[in-house]
Amino acid sequence: MIRRKPIAHPDSLASLGEDGLLHLLTRRWRYGATVRSGVGDDCAVLEGRRKDHFLLFKTDSVVEGVHFSSETPSRLVGRKALARALSDIAAMGGRPLYALISLALPPTSAPAAVQELYRGIERLARQFAVELVGGELSRSSQLVLTVSLLGETVGYLPLLRSGARPGEGLYVTGSLGGSLESGRHLRFSPRLSEGQWLAQGHWATSLMDLSDGLASDLPRLSRSSRIEFSLEESHIPRRRGRSLSQALCDGEDYELLFTVAPEREAALREEWPFPTRLSRIGTGLHPSSALSRKQSTSHGFDHFRVS
Amino acid sequence: MIRRKPIAHPDSLASLGEDGLLHLLTRRWRYGATVRSGVGDDCAVLEGRRKDHFLLFKTDSVVEGVHFSSETPSRLVGRKALARALSDIAAMGGRPLYALISLALPPTSAPAAVQELYRGIERLARQFAVELVGGELSRSSQLVLTVSLLGETVGYLPLLRSGARPGEGLYVTGSLGGSLESGRHLRFSPRLSEGQWLAQGHWATSLMDLSDGLASDLPRLSRSSRIEFSLEESHIPRRRGRSLSQALCDGEDYELLFTVAPEREAALREEWPFPTRLSRIGTGLHPSSALSRKQSTSHGFDHFRVS
Repeated sequence: MIRRKPIAHPDSLASLGEDGLLHLLTRRWRYGATVRSGVGDDCAVLEGRRKDHFLLFKTDSVVEGVHFSSETPSRLVGRKALARALSDIAAMGGRPLYALISLALPPTSAPAAVQELYRGIERLARQFAVELVGGELSRSSQLVLTVSLLGETVGYLPLLRSGARPGEGLYVTGSLGGSLESGRHLRFSPRLSEGQWLAQGHWATSLMDLSDGLASDLPRLSRSSRIEFSLEESHIPRRRGRSLSQALCDGEDYELLFTVAPEREAALREEWPFPTRLSRIGTGLHPSSALSRKQSTSHGFDHFRVS
Repeated sequence: MIRRKPIAHPDSLASLGEDGLLHLLTRRWRYGATVRSGVGDDCAVLEGRRKDHFLLFKTDSVVEGVHFSSETPSRLVGRKALARALSDIAAMGGRPLYALISLALPPTSAPAAVQELYRGIERLARQFAVELVGGELSRSSQLVLTVSLLGETVGYLPLLRSGARPGEGLYVTGSLGGSLESGRHLRFSPRLSEGQWLAQGHWATSLMDLSDGLASDLPRLSRSSRIEFSLEESHIPRRRGRSLSQALCDGEDYELLFTVAPEREAALREEWPFPTRLSRIGTGLHPSSALSRKQSTSHGFDHFRVS
């Protein structure tokens, strides 16, 4: 994977990319002692009410024309907005608690459609025992739905992106590719049980969710953990009929990507209690072998980068 | 004040209004035991780490063309977004802790402008000791900036909108009217110290902030507390050169509106430790006198209502 060089005086967001811009914006942030992890992970991690209690704090937006189209049923728009944020709680091994809904929408919207959108949120919230505790409305020309989530881990540390070590196995849940085409991006089930199991049992050393595609998301794991990975491309689980390139770059998979210490890999496969497919797709490289790595130019979805 | 009747089959958001739509969307929500207050107050109130600790959870958006114009300096856009959310923490008597920034913006935006927007947020965050712990970017045709805040009260209960009782004095901080025209809406200081003082000393029985104008916000306090108020119009503090109607309807004041039990009013005025102006503008009515109230047809800002 190619590491992007920081750009000092960029002219446009497109030249920077989403990660580049976020880095530019937040690189000067410093955190106090109660912040275990800030920008750069799937959620912020904050100290909770006692030593082994942590709060997870997350916000995520879906935008009309980007994350869904004007033809997407409203119920699925609401569902997707909450599911994406839940996937970020899953990516820390956490349990979701409370959600707030912030909705900017055209004043010409039909109230019935807005109700349907809320129904989609409510149904998924019930399924995962999330309490909806607030809503806010404003007008805009384009629908933007932002979900804020508060979650927790009790009795164990949330899993960060920074914990991967050389020699560890790289794993992914489910199958990748074709999520947008197939409509799966509107109906996926966030991997909350899997994430909690991985964190609670100390199975994984690092964990994140795949939202922009393995080709975009694996470099983020790499950067956070400061190691490179070798990928076994033939082991990357593809959704039926999808090419390797689709599995790498389509994005919107909302599967979990994580690393496991070599001495625990056999037991992990033995004890994995879910019907969800589990694939070992690579290995964390030692610095020496990383030098001779094959570079890949494939990339996943970026909000601002020109492809 | 006129109480709006619920509309069963509305055709447009404009006919419902912001409050009407939010009621329609959230009226079926039920909360668990750990939720002290959900929709309908300035923040959600959640039980904290011990009996006298409460978490405050809030999300709020500003939208280009609604809360600011394309000519508004980016730094002030960022500042306003955080200041509005902080005002909601002030309106519970709470202390802000952590913030997340969710920014949807056109890909053609200049990175320098986005940096300025973040600078505006950062500067105000430092001023009020708020830790910025996460950011998220997506593309859109119109700039929508959503701030999510986590706050707390330690050792005392957050002040709700529902605590006002007949006979109590109705108070407001500062002066009202002309906030948009004068640019104050971009530079106001959220009344965090005042709110904390009112809650911690058990001075107020109910508290909220004025965001849409007294004419819109007082009915919300009325509805939550299930009492009516008499207003002494000549006592409503107007910003220099503003009419009564402007003080009632302009909105964007971000002052505090609260009620005080009659036996504490003299001491409140005596001990009020802030340079901020304090005005007694009305009285909570007993149900019998409320029947003969003068009805007012003036109204403040509503996101969807046609004026």
